[in-house]
Amino acid sequence: MPNMLGDDELLAAIDIGSNSFHLAIARMDHGDLKKIAAMSEKVQLGAGLDEQKRLSEDVQKRGLDCLARFVGRLENVQAERLRVVATNALRQAVNADEFIARANAILPRPIEIISGREEARLIYVGVANTLVNDTKRFVVDIGGGSTELIVGKGHESILTESAQMGAVSFTQKFFKDGVISNAAFDAAISAAQKEIIPYAQRYQKTGFETVIGSSGTIKAVKGALMQLGLADKERITLDGVLALRQHLVGVGCVNDIELNTVKAHRKAIFPAGLAVLIAVMQIFGVKRMTYSDGALREGVMYDMMSRLGSDDVRDLSTQALIERFNVDKKQAKRVVKTARMLFNDAKAALNLSDADNDLLRRVAFLHEIGLAIGHSGYHRHSAYMLENAEIAGFSRMDQAQMAQMVRHHRRKLHAADFERICRVGGERLARLTLLLRLAVAANHSRNDLARHQIHLTIKSVNDWQILLEKDSHGGHALLLSDLKDEAMQLIKWGVNLQVSVN
Amino acid sequence: MPNMLGDDELLAAIDIGSNSFHLAIARMDHGDLKKIAAMSEKVQLGAGLDEQKRLSEDVQKRGLDCLARFVGRLENVQAERLRVVATNALRQAVNADEFIARANAILPRPIEIISGREEARLIYVGVANTLVNDTKRFVVDIGGGSTELIVGKGHESILTESAQMGAVSFTQKFFKDGVISNAAFDAAISAAQKEIIPYAQRYQKTGFETVIGSSGTIKAVKGALMQLGLADKERITLDGVLALRQHLVGVGCVNDIELNTVKAHRKAIFPAGLAVLIAVMQIFGVKRMTYSDGALREGVMYDMMSRLGSDDVRDLSTQALIERFNVDKKQAKRVVKTARMLFNDAKAALNLSDADNDLLRRVAFLHEIGLAIGHSGYHRHSAYMLENAEIAGFSRMDQAQMAQMVRHHRRKLHAADFERICRVGGERLARLTLLLRLAVAANHSRNDLARHQIHLTIKSVNDWQILLEKDSHGGHALLLSDLKDEAMQLIKWGVNLQVSVN
Repeated sequence: MPNMLGDDELLAAIDIGSNSFHLAIARMDHGDLKKIAAMSEKVQLGAGLDEQKRLSEDVQKRGLDCLARFVGRLENVQAERLRVVATNALRQAVNADEFIARANAILPRPIEIISGREEARLIYVGVANTLVNDTKRFVVDIGGGSTELIVGKGHESILTESAQMGAVSFTQKFFKDGVISNAAFDAAISAAQKEIIPYAQRYQKTGFETVIGSSGTIKAVKGALMQLGLADKERITLDGVLALRQHLVGVGCVNDIELNTVKAHRKAIFPAGLAVLIAVMQIFGVKRMTYSDGALREGVMYDMMSRLGSDDVRDLSTQALIERFNVDKKQAKRVVKTARMLFNDAKAALNLSDADNDLLRRVAFLHEIGLAIGHSGYHRHSAYMLENAEIAGFSRMDQAQMAQMVRHHRRKLHAADFERICRVGGERLARLTLLLRLAVAANHSRNDLARHQIHLTIKSVNDWQILLEKDSHGGHALLLSDLKDEAMQLIKWGVNLQVSVN
Repeated sequence: MPNMLGDDELLAAIDIGSNSFHLAIARMDHGDLKKIAAMSEKVQLGAGLDEQKRLSEDVQKRGLDCLARFVGRLENVQAERLRVVATNALRQAVNADEFIARANAILPRPIEIISGREEARLIYVGVANTLVNDTKRFVVDIGGGSTELIVGKGHESILTESAQMGAVSFTQKFFKDGVISNAAFDAAISAAQKEIIPYAQRYQKTGFETVIGSSGTIKAVKGALMQLGLADKERITLDGVLALRQHLVGVGCVNDIELNTVKAHRKAIFPAGLAVLIAVMQIFGVKRMTYSDGALREGVMYDMMSRLGSDDVRDLSTQALIERFNVDKKQAKRVVKTARMLFNDAKAALNLSDADNDLLRRVAFLHEIGLAIGHSGYHRHSAYMLENAEIAGFSRMDQAQMAQMVRHHRRKLHAADFERICRVGGERLARLTLLLRLAVAANHSRNDLARHQIHLTIKSVNDWQILLEKDSHGGHALLLSDLKDEAMQLIKWGVNLQVSVN
């Protein structure tokens, strides 16, 4: 891998959360990350979702202003050393595309929406990297719209779940008027229990030795407990959170909360966040937990370090998918090999990057994954699976691009599909798809014996030439015919392919 | 199983093929089937598909007239002892629904479109039941629109594939003008080879001892070879088919074929059928094959026998799916158990059948299959998989019904979905879905310990009541709350559910 990180290089992560937006910048220092700057703003994107799950113009404006301020701090960070991830609020918003387009016009890197599972995994990476020991731990992160629950050991997460409950969304459902009552707490805790009770048995069976909380809600609870003398040596206990609940009910209204450990902007969402925490502690049998300030943004930066190093989790999860869905590995490797050959022939002329090479390789490994569902039209099944599977390390946009590639790796091409694929990943993605098609066509016989030498020359972006080496058994005749068939498809996407035999 | 077949009972099958429609009627005789009547008509549904893959009014009329004549022969056959299966032409036709609706108005049983793989499986069942020995065999069935290729041993198929090539479709592509030339044969054989070459290695690796051909094309080839003195003791040889090809090229035009073993209506599609056969024999290394008159319609009848007996292939394939996609079997069994209880409570009042019970049980086993793809919205993944997977024993309509049920087994219901599910399977299917929802909700905690007794009373079709038995640990409180949440969903499909604790 060419991109090992040197000392003093900067990495940065932006977390577009449902409650707050966060920016973190870190410097490489002896192979580890040292955080050098952090900013957080309470944008409350989640609260800006209306009944139809549309982001209002107001909240969009607030979010864009915040991102503009973040960008002002990023001038020393290379674009490829930044990741911008978005979580539950943008997962839910029906007009997320609109906000993302406006944000991408400001940001040096496009926003990537990540799934709840991927969020959970990254939070765990963030927490694990701030802790020294290797015990089996249960990590709880209560966000504005979702709560991530992870069991892991050392740097590996074992169970990852994302539950649809958070401090912002539960405030809207149960504490909208600001009144803090036992009835509101009961309703909120009961709703939270319902979301997580299906996981209880599996988590308890897996087991854990320590419990770590992260996120602003848990930090605020810890502060409140310490201020009220309810903490157990800085630890959050079940008795403590239940006493805090009673304290808040006694206060009666969020405006009257006088704890200075709970910031002004957090008061409104504090009872709901506490209710979620109580439900988690009760259902998973947690008696006490410690707070860690490792979080999603730290996880994103550590994950970037791995990507730029030698253990990219995306390659591990590609291999895991191959195993889970019993892909024909021999055929996958044949196609990967041919695709690599074609990529190298095309790279310079088509102005492709190492990231494009990674994408093509992973898709070549996975293009037949849909056969697990059925043979007829399996490219559509492959696309469905790659679009919808929860695959560690990939954002939704990554998966949408992979899905488009496998969707068009065989059968007829149409001009309309070209426009669609360009919308998802530009003409670059269309060309990578055509390279995949040629690699698949060249391995149509699924046979090692019939390995042929093919050479691709890119005369211009839309003018390609394949030279095929004649073999003594005449096996090249079928390949020649397959590639000529391909030429008739490629032209529909504007690429003129000449095929000839040497 | 309640429906064991007695002697003298009649079974019947109609095969709506791309070239011909076939009817077969058989009588149970000492536990085996004795064919007592057969009719075939050359409807050429496949040839009636226009460029846009629409069935013309003419061919629909021809098909409906044929079915009306078949129905005239079915008066002694009970509707539930008849199956009507349709293959490639209806799989392809964009207006298949229109033809099916018109046909269903005539037929005592609705038409079921089956997948290519299911067609292959059933053909094998048909062939295997007409042969006595248990050798490993390769069965080839060249239809009008698709060619089925099966390797099996005894009564079990091992490999099943359906290739997009047939005597009718290849006539349209390569012999449209009736001219029989070497060029036309070369083009047709080369196109057929391309379709099947991806399977060659796997079939040869699996291996086979004998080769059996079925279908009209292969019967006609056998007849022609015998008439020309080119057969090897009634067997079709590779040398023989190549000599027959030369004979036909010598004749030059389909109208001039004078072989009386080739029926008049088959002459036009005979060269294309022969080309497909030559390609199959060459690619799979077949030197000689025998003809068997077991075919799809026989397979359908033998499969019906199994369904009515104790080894329904649909239950076997349900269990196979559970294994393949690693379904949580404990949870599946809990839901199956509760669903059975609810079904028994509801059966009489909702006028449900044993077939409905089978459907509910299988869907209860499979409802979490989508978790193999991802957790978020997994009911949609389950629906996609059940709609698209190639599952032995099920027709497309069966799978569409299962998909509708799992699609709506959790999360919000909408009135619009009620109309959709009724179109697929009537109000009966909607009610089975609601029973599934209740069974899933009752097992929300995924815990054997939390097993509760629930009793369903159907006061009227849309007025249901659940009585829940109180337990000493208070665990019924969460269940009560879950079922009350369900009541708020059921009402959207018009069902008023009262829940109370005993």
